[in-house]
Amino acid sequence: MEDEPLVLLVAQDALEAGGYTVLPAQLSTEALTVLESRIRELSGLVTDIRLPGGSDGWEIARRARELQADLPVVYTTADSAADWPVKGVPNSVVVQKPYAGAQLLTAISTLMTTADTNRTS
Amino acid sequence: MEDEPLVLLVAQDALEAGGYTVLPAQLSTEALTVLESRIRELSGLVTDIRLPGGSDGWEIARRARELQADLPVVYTTADSAADWPVKGVPNSVVVQKPYAGAQLLTAISTLMTTADTNRTS
Amino acid sequence: MEDEPLVLLVAQDALEAGGYTVLPAQLSTEALTVLESRIRELSGLVTDIRLPGGSDGWEIARRARELQADLPVVYTTADSAADWPVKGVPNSVVVQKPYAGAQLLTAISTLMTTADTNRTS
Amino acid sequence: MEDEPLVLLVAQDALEAGGYTVLPAQLSTEALTVLESRIRELSGLVTDIRLPGGSDGWEIARRARELQADLPVVYTTADSAADWPVKGVPNSVVVQKPYAGAQLLTAISTLMTTADTNRTS
Amino acid sequence: MEDEPLVLLVAQDALEAGGYTVLPAQLSTEALTVLESRIRELSGLVTDIRLPGGSDGWEIARRARELQADLPVVYTTADSAADWPVKGVPNSVVVQKPYAGAQLLTAISTLMTTADTNRTS
Amino acid sequence: MEDEPLVLLVAQDALEAGGYTVLPAQLSTEALTVLESRIRELSGLVTDIRLPGGSDGWEIARRARELQADLPVVYTTADSAADWPVKGVPNSVVVQKPYAGAQLLTAISTLMTTADTNRTS
Repeated sequence: MEDEPLVLLVAQDALEAGGYTVLPAQLSTEALTVLESRIRELSGLVTDIRLPGGSDGWEIARRARELQADLPVVYTTADSAADWPVKGVPNSVVVQKPYAGAQLLTAISTLMTTADTNRTS
Repeated sequence: MEDEPLVLLVAQDALEAGGYTVLPAQLSTEALTVLESRIRELSGLVTDIRLPGGSDGWEIARRARELQADLPVVYTTADSAADWPVKGVPNSVVVQKPYAGAQLLTAISTLMTTADTNRTS
Repeated sequence: MEDEPLVLLVAQDALEAGGYTVLPAQLSTEALTVLESRIRELSGLVTDIRLPGGSDGWEIARRARELQADLPVVYTTADSAADWPVKGVPNSVVVQKPYAGAQLLTAISTLMTTADTNRTS
Repeated sequence: MEDEPLVLLVAQDALEAGGYTVLPAQLSTEALTVLESRIRELSGLVTDIRLPGGSDGWEIARRARELQADLPVVYTTADSAADWPVKGVPNSVVVQKPYAGAQLLTAISTLMTTADTNRTS
Repeated sequence: MEDEPLVLLVAQDALEAGGYTVLPAQLSTEALTVLESRIRELSGLVTDIRLPGGSDGWEIARRARELQADLPVVYTTADSAADWPVKGVPNSVVVQKPYAGAQLLTAISTLMTTADTNRTS
Repeated sequence: MEDEPLVLLVAQDALEAGGYTVLPAQLSTEALTVLESRIRELSGLVTDIRLPGGSDGWEIARRARELQADLPVVYTTADSAADWPVKGVPNSVVVQKPYAGAQLLTAISTLMTTADTNRTS
């Protein structure tokens, strides 16, 4: 059983514990570079809303969806969740910080199975 | 049984046949004026993507959600649906044109019941 | 195509316009009598929360579910929706008053199709 | 507002009242002919399970899905619903007969909006 | 990454393995005390139906929802699941005992993400 | 906390790590034998599509559903997902290979909770 890579802008331990390969990015500029260059390898995006580097998580996710229209997206945030109904992409979810590892794993995993199942049609 | 008003940027017959009161707008500028001035009366937004007047339906919907975070949103479109995963707001739907009246009625009605039910909590 | 009977504690015009046969009840006591005596004929329950006659809509729905565990339930209300997360039954919905006929029809119809589809398993 | 055609193997009045154009078929052989020749025009399939003509509704729906993988499917039936978990196609629903027109309209309309919305991605 | 506390009336190992902080209660009276005094800290409730101490799990969950209307609720039970459609709160789930740890973790985590995502609007 | 057995036609490590008891089968003939003889013990089915032994995963799942109408079904596949809309059973999901363990665990666990919750009604 191989792993699936994700772009990750938050702590990566929980995701790796669940078997995912993480492509970590600390700055929004790094995240955008990974998205542009390695989108075919990615199965999902986990991003914080507030990021150092110029772009916020809302922008990162929109760029990711331009590159792959059905990419699963999880936003993690302590204080920016109220903007999700305006700035979030469709079929994404919010995980409020602090969170347990299982919540993050379940959130991205659920979206990935929905994408896998619908991608077939 | 009273009716519920909607901002409408498309043909209003089907919605009125289902018992809704429609606040029609032909230009995006009119739609924005209605949203700003009468948001408290609105139960939902039905908008085409391409609109005369400067803003498109994606922008109209984001402005509507800034004013009311859980407003039901239906986009109708013949050719712009592919942008929905990037530009649509969460918990919205797309109805492809041409459509039967029942499809539009069911789409907005379903979202309104979800909002009514969740607004209680 | 025959009609499907419903117990109804609100205005019945919209439901009949959609092809449903309505068993109307004005008092909660009447509603309970219909439920007890004719549960096998019923495909759903539409009930207001505030009712004359001793019981409220929350109690009516719980009694209905005791008699048929998967009965579709729609609550209509102007001011009691905030109690739904505590007093509502699972898999029910709230339609806020005033409502358009199409919203009520869509709400009960959606729940009935879910029940029809799951009842098979 | 134009209509959307459907293949229909049951009474067509309710669907036409909701604004749909119906391509009726009485025999399963006719249904298969319509599917093969006009699949590009179709937005959904409403089929009874028991049909004269050699194939049943389960087979009709599988053939329709081979031709268009995300076609909305509604099965109507009085007595064959118990086979749905085995013989139904994914993302289909069952409407038990007899049914009110609004239930059938809501069922097919809901599936069409889901298809319209997901087809964009 | 910090943990999220839960009131727990069942075995706590699986939840802690997933990163949750558990506030355990063995008696229904203890559970009620924790709910009353620490509701702001809680992200969810996992409760058995049959409990020593006077109240059952149905009552515990209703009290929890009075205190926080959108609190995620998971009922675990070996033999009382049939009462869920009557006595359960909306948007709750049942996990049948015996269960694997992953099922319980996934159930509470899924409800928490739904609450996190909808709480924003 | 006891475990729940599953028939498994793919790698079993992830499922056992989540607390499930796995009844492994390598050939489709073995899978069918387990289903026939031990269906009462099973809480779900995880099956690859391509299998040695004569039957494919689509057939295994249909046989499983004949024996237990609401059995959770997860298909795992690298290259056969496009047939799911035609050959899959309702309320099943696809997990694309390669997958992380957490995705498989979440997929089967989510379906089991849905079955546990609906089985009560």
